[in-house]
Amino acid sequence: MVEGQRGAYVFTIRAGWPNQVGMLGMITSAIGEAGGNIGAIDIIEAARDRIVRDLTISARDVEHSHEIVDGVRQIPKVKVIQVADRAFQLHLGGKIEVSVKVPIRNRETLAMVYTPGVARVSLGIKDDPAAAWNLTIKKNTVAVVTDGTAVLGLGDVGPLAALPVMEGKSMLFKELAGVDAWPICLDTKDPEEIIKAVKWISPGFGGINLEDISAPRCFEIEERLRQELDIPVFHDDQHGTAVVMLAGLINALKIVNKRLEDLRVVISGVGSAGIASARLLKEVGVIDMVCCDRAGVVCRGRASDMNPAKNWIAMNTNHRGIQGTLSDAITGADFFLGVSGPGVLTLEDLKKMARDPIVFALANPVPEIMPEVAAPYVRIMATGRSDYANQVNNALCFPGFFRGLLDTRVREINSEMKVAAAHAIASTVTQHQLHEDYIIPSIFNRTVVHLVARAVAKAAYKTGQARKRQPSYRYSQMYWEPHGG
Amino acid sequence: MVEGQRGAYVFTIRAGWPNQVGMLGMITSAIGEAGGNIGAIDIIEAARDRIVRDLTISARDVEHSHEIVDGVRQIPKVKVIQVADRAFQLHLGGKIEVSVKVPIRNRETLAMVYTPGVARVSLGIKDDPAAAWNLTIKKNTVAVVTDGTAVLGLGDVGPLAALPVMEGKSMLFKELAGVDAWPICLDTKDPEEIIKAVKWISPGFGGINLEDISAPRCFEIEERLRQELDIPVFHDDQHGTAVVMLAGLINALKIVNKRLEDLRVVISGVGSAGIASARLLKEVGVIDMVCCDRAGVVCRGRASDMNPAKNWIAMNTNHRGIQGTLSDAITGADFFLGVSGPGVLTLEDLKKMARDPIVFALANPVPEIMPEVAAPYVRIMATGRSDYANQVNNALCFPGFFRGLLDTRVREINSEMKVAAAHAIASTVTQHQLHEDYIIPSIFNRTVVHLVARAVAKAAYKTGQARKRQPSYRYSQMYWEPHGG
Repeated sequence: MVEGQRGAYVFTIRAGWPNQVGMLGMITSAIGEAGGNIGAIDIIEAARDRIVRDLTISARDVEHSHEIVDGVRQIPKVKVIQVADRAFQLHLGGKIEVSVKVPIRNRETLAMVYTPGVARVSLGIKDDPAAAWNLTIKKNTVAVVTDGTAVLGLGDVGPLAALPVMEGKSMLFKELAGVDAWPICLDTKDPEEIIKAVKWISPGFGGINLEDISAPRCFEIEERLRQELDIPVFHDDQHGTAVVMLAGLINALKIVNKRLEDLRVVISGVGSAGIASARLLKEVGVIDMVCCDRAGVVCRGRASDMNPAKNWIAMNTNHRGIQGTLSDAITGADFFLGVSGPGVLTLEDLKKMARDPIVFALANPVPEIMPEVAAPYVRIMATGRSDYANQVNNALCFPGFFRGLLDTRVREINSEMKVAAAHAIASTVTQHQLHEDYIIPSIFNRTVVHLVARAVAKAAYKTGQARKRQPSYRYSQMYWEPHGG
Repeated sequence: MVEGQRGAYVFTIRAGWPNQVGMLGMITSAIGEAGGNIGAIDIIEAARDRIVRDLTISARDVEHSHEIVDGVRQIPKVKVIQVADRAFQLHLGGKIEVSVKVPIRNRETLAMVYTPGVARVSLGIKDDPAAAWNLTIKKNTVAVVTDGTAVLGLGDVGPLAALPVMEGKSMLFKELAGVDAWPICLDTKDPEEIIKAVKWISPGFGGINLEDISAPRCFEIEERLRQELDIPVFHDDQHGTAVVMLAGLINALKIVNKRLEDLRVVISGVGSAGIASARLLKEVGVIDMVCCDRAGVVCRGRASDMNPAKNWIAMNTNHRGIQGTLSDAITGADFFLGVSGPGVLTLEDLKKMARDPIVFALANPVPEIMPEVAAPYVRIMATGRSDYANQVNNALCFPGFFRGLLDTRVREINSEMKVAAAHAIASTVTQHQLHEDYIIPSIFNRTVVHLVARAVAKAAYKTGQARKRQPSYRYSQMYWEPHGG
């Protein structure tokens, strides 16, 4: 199951050496012996007696890169000039930019896209606000909003340090689904202020993607914005994870031949992903579900470390009234979902699960149990990592999900859309392909976005949330006024 | 001086007729006779007996387009199928989009621009916030912020109807200066809330362009944001207009051979552009200046229709203590600046001005006095319109101005930068080219942006506002850690 950690850390060595036959071979051998994987090799300077090259190398991690550099430095006559982190180099100047869709080549075009022509368009929207969906960027634009309090596994790094992550998100939105997403990094952590900020900036956007906002603040922020805005609000850390988890589970159940309604589920972690997953599983018919956090099993009457979201969990799960720890809850479980922290699930716990255990250990970068450790005792395993099989990756959901929302001008997201998206993702793995190590498609599978968008749009029409009248509606017809001749 | 109103309203006629020799000629003649200017002619459908074409036509205005269409409809056998406003067609789906700078082609790139590689970049910024200027979009990104209260000459159309104008602004930022500007249309008119919103969203931006916010609210909003933010804040309706006006005046004075310090100036209009122009003129040495609004001359002791900005005007202009109306103030004036409304300046007023009158009648779309009316009595005339000579167009200033601010990472804008920008714009019209009808360059003159950016950057270094250490500083060096060999 383990594919290793190839490509986890890519760096560049710039080194110079005498321009002699055999030198490059010595260097590449040294890199290979140290376990480095060589990518591009470029010439920077070449003189008759001396050559300088850039060698791009994949290492397991930063430590490993130091070992490789040390190996190169030990070769006589080789001088290492500089070592660079490729990730930093790719970030220079930012990762996204604005492009114009109508080039301004002359005064005539300018007079239409800007003054005076734009005034007619503004007045058209003033008279009919719905026209903004046709005549502005609103129809294809999403705000990626964060306060930087729960960025990746890094915690509260603040809005500025969150910006590269939001840019990465915007890239995925555009590359995978053609959605124009702009990062909005908020310099406030107060939920009321975040709600206000999003409401105030909302006119220019067709949807809001909340990102990396810590629990339990994220629940109130999302709920309030859902109620108070007329565009869809999606907290990706909650619903993106829940949808892709459900997609993987749907496929896993086909392999082990079990049904959602018969399943015993244990969830470790009652943060944004845990709560949303529990809600979505309940929605699709899971009855027996027990949730745990650092304080143990969440049950009615528990007093310590609770919040409104956990109260919902206490009232709506754990019908058998289990108390104690994760180890108490895990006995007989069919499905373990970890959205907590490293090493939470022990081998002893694993052994107590029912036949054909399904384990989704999604803590990042170090899962609740390492796949190589769990391997002998699990039937199907998924993680949040790209270097193991079955990666539960939010990028399978949010691009297509928003594509579907924008295409139909959804007012509010509902669980029908989320369930439809999960089934769409699951459907991209055919019965023929289905395998313990392939329950979740790759994010480079281009059909995923298309199917998710279609499923969300269909659910939007079915549940009356679509404001766009019909899928085949042609915008361009609207601005042709008939002149009977 | 008058060039006419060519291209003011561009529209498309889709019409069908029998596919016979001579038909197209009849149609184009009819359009020409009605005063229409034909652009592109496209074939939409061509059968043996029938042809359908799109004819793109420039008319003076919408009324005129109806006359042209009627002319075409009167030709026997011609059937007008549809008529469309080209400006609306160009707006379909919005005018800007997001582009990725690093295409995500494979898992290896994804692992650097998104998780896990992006985590190292986030931590790098957390440790050294200034690194965000290198590693994120911040270095090249401006928020174009409006509340939609003073959009073009349309007034308070609201944030949604303002969006096409802000998109047009973003296009000009990108096309003219390579600046990435994103529209932020705020759903609040409360100055305190606007200030909060801009402060909260500021981390992801390198500068703030305030746009189309009504006076006098705009003064407080800009002033407070200048004080409370560490990135430059520029209200274009104030300073953009003031800078380009000053550029035009500098060149006009070369022609009439007068000096700023000897000038008698009358300003009509004490809104955002009027206040900012008065301040900038005082800054460059104008001593004798009188400002008027609907209530007459602004003077000490005037009680009606005042606000803090007008109080500043009362205290800092009108040293001769003139009272009354514009007509009282205009006697002996060398320079009339109109930033008010249509027809405010009469011929009688004009005749009272000093020798070689300079008149900038910038009200849009109808100036304080029409150039054809004023022509016999003025030496130099400028307007805000593209269809007359000497257009005072903000687009000559803001793209290059922000280019200079971002390139040097300015913390706060000062008047040195504005004066430098005005001189830079003026300098693009050479002594040899200088003429009553050519005191201001075209916005399609590419040297303008370059010279304005350089002038602003120079002023930023001179006044200690530049946070970037040296102009030739190479970002890419920062992320190479020296490895002595």
